Amino acid sequence: MSATELKDLAPLLLKKERAGGDVNPVVLTNILRESAEKNARRKEMTQMIENHPVLSDRDMLYRNHTQRYNYGIKKAYHYVRLLKEKNITDPVDQQYLYRALGEPLGIDVHRSMFIPTLENQADEEQQKKWLLKAKQFKILGAYAQTELGHGSNVQGIETTAHFDKASQQFIINSPTLTSRKWWPGGLGKTANHAIVHARLFLDGKDFGVQAFLVQLRSLENHQPLPGIEVGDIGPKVGFQSVDNGYCAFHNVRIPRENMMMRYAKVLPDGTFVEPKSDKLVYLTMVQVRANLIHSFGLMMASAATITTRFSSARVQGRTPTGKGEFQVLDYQNQQNALFPFIAISYAANFAGRWIMQLHDEAIDIIKSGKGSFGSKLAELHATTSGLKAWLAVNVSDGIETCRRMCGGHGFTNSSNLGHIFAEIVGANTFEGTFDVLVQQHARYLLKVLVTMPFKGDTTGELPPPESNSTSFLAKAKQYANPSVRCSAQKPEDFADFKLLIEAFETRAARIVVRLAKQMQATNDDSNACMVLMTRASTAHAELLLLDAFVKGVASVPAGPTQVAVAKLCALFGSSLIVKSLGDFREDNYLSSAQGELVRQYTVSLLPVVRKNAVLLTDAWDFSDFELNSTIGRYDGDIYRALVKRAADEPLNKTQVAESYEKYLKPLIQSGL
Amino acid sequence: MSATELKDLAPLLLKKERAGGDVNPVVLTNILRESAEKNARRKEMTQMIENHPVLSDRDMLYRNHTQRYNYGIKKAYHYVRLLKEKNITDPVDQQYLYRALGEPLGIDVHRSMFIPTLENQADEEQQKKWLLKAKQFKILGAYAQTELGHGSNVQGIETTAHFDKASQQFIINSPTLTSRKWWPGGLGKTANHAIVHARLFLDGKDFGVQAFLVQLRSLENHQPLPGIEVGDIGPKVGFQSVDNGYCAFHNVRIPRENMMMRYAKVLPDGTFVEPKSDKLVYLTMVQVRANLIHSFGLMMASAATITTRFSSARVQGRTPTGKGEFQVLDYQNQQNALFPFIAISYAANFAGRWIMQLHDEAIDIIKSGKGSFGSKLAELHATTSGLKAWLAVNVSDGIETCRRMCGGHGFTNSSNLGHIFAEIVGANTFEGTFDVLVQQHARYLLKVLVTMPFKGDTTGELPPPESNSTSFLAKAKQYANPSVRCSAQKPEDFADFKLLIEAFETRAARIVVRLAKQMQATNDDSNACMVLMTRASTAHAELLLLDAFVKGVASVPAGPTQVAVAKLCALFGSSLIVKSLGDFREDNYLSSAQGELVRQYTVSLLPVVRKNAVLLTDAWDFSDFELNSTIGRYDGDIYRALVKRAADEPLNKTQVAESYEKYLKPLIQSGL
Repeated sequence: MSATELKDLAPLLLKKERAGGDVNPVVLTNILRESAEKNARRKEMTQMIENHPVLSDRDMLYRNHTQRYNYGIKKAYHYVRLLKEKNITDPVDQQYLYRALGEPLGIDVHRSMFIPTLENQADEEQQKKWLLKAKQFKILGAYAQTELGHGSNVQGIETTAHFDKASQQFIINSPTLTSRKWWPGGLGKTANHAIVHARLFLDGKDFGVQAFLVQLRSLENHQPLPGIEVGDIGPKVGFQSVDNGYCAFHNVRIPRENMMMRYAKVLPDGTFVEPKSDKLVYLTMVQVRANLIHSFGLMMASAATITTRFSSARVQGRTPTGKGEFQVLDYQNQQNALFPFIAISYAANFAGRWIMQLHDEAIDIIKSGKGSFGSKLAELHATTSGLKAWLAVNVSDGIETCRRMCGGHGFTNSSNLGHIFAEIVGANTFEGTFDVLVQQHARYLLKVLVTMPFKGDTTGELPPPESNSTSFLAKAKQYANPSVRCSAQKPEDFADFKLLIEAFETRAARIVVRLAKQMQATNDDSNACMVLMTRASTAHAELLLLDAFVKGVASVPAGPTQVAVAKLCALFGSSLIVKSLGDFREDNYLSSAQGELVRQYTVSLLPVVRKNAVLLTDAWDFSDFELNSTIGRYDGDIYRALVKRAADEPLNKTQVAESYEKYLKPLIQSGL
Repeated sequence: MSATELKDLAPLLLKKERAGGDVNPVVLTNILRESAEKNARRKEMTQMIENHPVLSDRDMLYRNHTQRYNYGIKKAYHYVRLLKEKNITDPVDQQYLYRALGEPLGIDVHRSMFIPTLENQADEEQQKKWLLKAKQFKILGAYAQTELGHGSNVQGIETTAHFDKASQQFIINSPTLTSRKWWPGGLGKTANHAIVHARLFLDGKDFGVQAFLVQLRSLENHQPLPGIEVGDIGPKVGFQSVDNGYCAFHNVRIPRENMMMRYAKVLPDGTFVEPKSDKLVYLTMVQVRANLIHSFGLMMASAATITTRFSSARVQGRTPTGKGEFQVLDYQNQQNALFPFIAISYAANFAGRWIMQLHDEAIDIIKSGKGSFGSKLAELHATTSGLKAWLAVNVSDGIETCRRMCGGHGFTNSSNLGHIFAEIVGANTFEGTFDVLVQQHARYLLKVLVTMPFKGDTTGELPPPESNSTSFLAKAKQYANPSVRCSAQKPEDFADFKLLIEAFETRAARIVVRLAKQMQATNDDSNACMVLMTRASTAHAELLLLDAFVKGVASVPAGPTQVAVAKLCALFGSSLIVKSLGDFREDNYLSSAQGELVRQYTVSLLPVVRKNAVLLTDAWDFSDFELNSTIGRYDGDIYRALVKRAADEPLNKTQVAESYEKYLKPLIQSGL
């Protein structure tokens, strides 16, 4: 092609990709976005943000942390005004709107943690006092749990709350350097109240960590109240628009009624009343993680969509015939790296759906008062832990890998890939760090293994398993038999979901059994078994994702669209086997030759998936406004978009930058 | 321990780690930093920056792109003034100083590419005209190769240079949207000249891509010259202080003498003179990559140092006895993830040393005029390609993993881990993207395989190999024999460097042989073999790194220090085997049982390496100023540092942020 043709080639190439596929993206959209109605509502809400003069702002990456925080508060103000003016009261609608802002704001934790804590942990009287005000943004709250010296280990919290019977007050203190609250979103500059986790002392006796509502700033002039030392912890890798903060308390007195009293209580005479059950608190945590799993799918999908479109529209490198250039999507390495990420986005979506089902089942049991509520919750807790740990790592790495796959244009902020990464990668830390979660998950698997009724059974005839997610452990003994072999004889045998699931079950079962032995050998020293625990959690998380994906395929109407999703699912499974081939070859479950077959099968799927890659990502139905990416535009007109966006850079407002007169001119004129 | 003790515990814990080790860090420093003298000089130069009122600035992450650019030019001015005042003329000294600035500036590419291009590609007359001026910063240059539509594929460049014989001028044009220069550092706002790569046309005939010197801006007032459209491409993931720019040319005329004429020439009558040899140009590229390999080692080392110190000073989670908390470094997962990154930093350092030796051998051959200069260069080119590709990915991922291992404090910019990542991760793209490099590397391995004199030989008796880096291919036939097995019988057998090297050689040889067959089967279709090519490059890069590390161990004086480095080297090898166990199990070179042995051995090394982990990272001898990390301080006083640094955040200059009056107050007072 001639140089002149090149300038308009990009959009044509993307059109060509769409024309070459046979997927009906609308069918998939209605599955991935739950229903046509929900998707329409989402788009309506997103459109409202796109049309808003302030809320449509996408210049955040031109700003420093201070500027982003202040502009973020401006957005928070307009967001609340919009809710008011359009009378948007449905929480789902509100969530659609808030997500469409494209960045979290200083009111983020007020929405996601402060209000829910009042709802779940405040008693009725307390809710009357604070909940409506909080919902109306008349008081703004932070959730102050983490301290400078303590993150995951909540029991290590050092902030103290001593009850003073005489005044009927708690006295809150930060007794050490490491006890200052550190990291809570909105704490630095926005919040005037906070839920503060502190160690309760009654007559000098420690009653463990409890939650208290503490007013931090004046409602008149926003100045910190006496005894409160509060500020922003400074810029971070992500959340630059949020004022993550610190706070130290110096003899701050709050009324007795400010302890969260729905469960634990302190009576006026200083008696401590034990909480009845905190299972529901537990359920809130599970809900947050379930939402995160859903979000991981969306974040992965947005990065994969941008990268697939860019790879289609971009040409690079002469073809062997010399007659044209390869599309980047033509390259086997690009396909091999990118397509498994499209698969992860689908797997996370389907897994999120399954988790919500499990969650609803738990709620049903609670409501009916019948059945094993505890075991359901334990399963939910363990599987959301394992899935959250796996997805946080793999989706963060996936987005960053996508960014690198877009070369220099991916490195530019206008690709939006750096921003998507920065806003999700923190999820590796918040809501449970990887190491804590995988241990919780692995411990659950061990527990299921030893409590399975087949313990000691040698017949191989086992009762039906307790639940889907660990049913494979009922067959652990058979799977662990080293003579068990995979039956694949040719590459395409790995297209068989039954064969794939069995492979993942075998691998997971063998690792869990090995872990059980190692735990026994080390006298239950979980730190000495941590690497193996991690492998157990990973193996089970991958099995859960594959299983959810397979069920997701079944939910797609039969036809070419279902076939395409099935191929993506097969790629998900086979590429994971290749990635951890050492696991699957353990005890020669896969032979060396079968290892080679699965590698061949994975590579053979790439051109098959490629045929529909653009349509499979189109199916997420992201608008250009949502993706906010010069190189991920639906129409493929990426080069014009890059040029246009570069013109917005503030440095380009003048031909000569302000540093010229003072520094560059003397440098050039006098030199070294 | 009580809460009050906690506040001063962190420094004590780090002291304890140092006291528990038996490594002499100074011995290692003098190896890692080449010599005691060089290290002393480096520290002297770094100290000069640390003492400078402007150049010691470390507030860059409080600034947006515009602010960072302008402040960066201020630094450039003071940097040049410092060179002048202290009369620092040695390029090595200058490099120490420049590195100590902690961020690249708008003059980066002027130093690293513009001046070297004049040195290598300008003829003597041209050098007389421009080189001194460039070295004195009286002209400031960019290196404008990449275009909006073309990165790696230099042959696709669209900018044109038509020779006009009548005026003895070239007319430079950007004929398409995609032909505008895009990305060059310093091009946007700083440079007044640029080396511009354009397609040369003589009487309408295309003579390929050549380099031209084009003046972009007035030396009087810095305004762009007529026909030049130039600006900044906007914010990026890294290099925010650099004005990466764009430029379009509209009939810009430059004298014939402005084409770089050392090799190719255009005579006044329009005759094109073919370049004699561009091998030396080639050598420049190799030098740049060799320096990058060295830098990867330093970047990985800085992140590993910060993370090791933080992990030692930080406690988290009760020990099983309940008497205290674990140091984060106690956790098996932390050790298992972190220590291989310490190993990578050492391996990269030793590999960088080996590459420089190879480079010097090539120079010797060139100078003597004897020997196979071409094959030496080909080897250098291929191995630096493979090592650069591997290290870019693994060091970027390693730094980011280190950041995550530091939890919330790693996420804070004051840890400096985010900054280190942002400044190195671009190396995945610049100086050759991964996919291009691994193919070049793999093609070289194939070439060596087929040209080895043993071709067809079945005796197993082979002549000595051509060079160290591919000597294993002389034994490819033996290695590829599927009956060859690893001899390890117990975990500690993997401590044997000979056994380890043999395992990596076998794996690499088998993949290269398999690749050769696949290339034959596909009629040399490298795209159809790209995944396997990547595996071949990875396998050989890991072999090279291990080999360099083993030789590095031998260079350490015998004693406990050498033992500790040897253990780190064994961990490097064994953890890589675990990571790619599927490869090593191919054709059962490792049996399933041996796979388990190597896993056991790797885990068994963790407490051994942990004993000296702090000292092994101390050995890099980074100053606190260089690391610029609150949580990576030498003295372990991380919490005080975090609190102190948070106070610097501009938002904390006032108790109430500027957005309060206008937005937050009305929101709180009127609410929803």
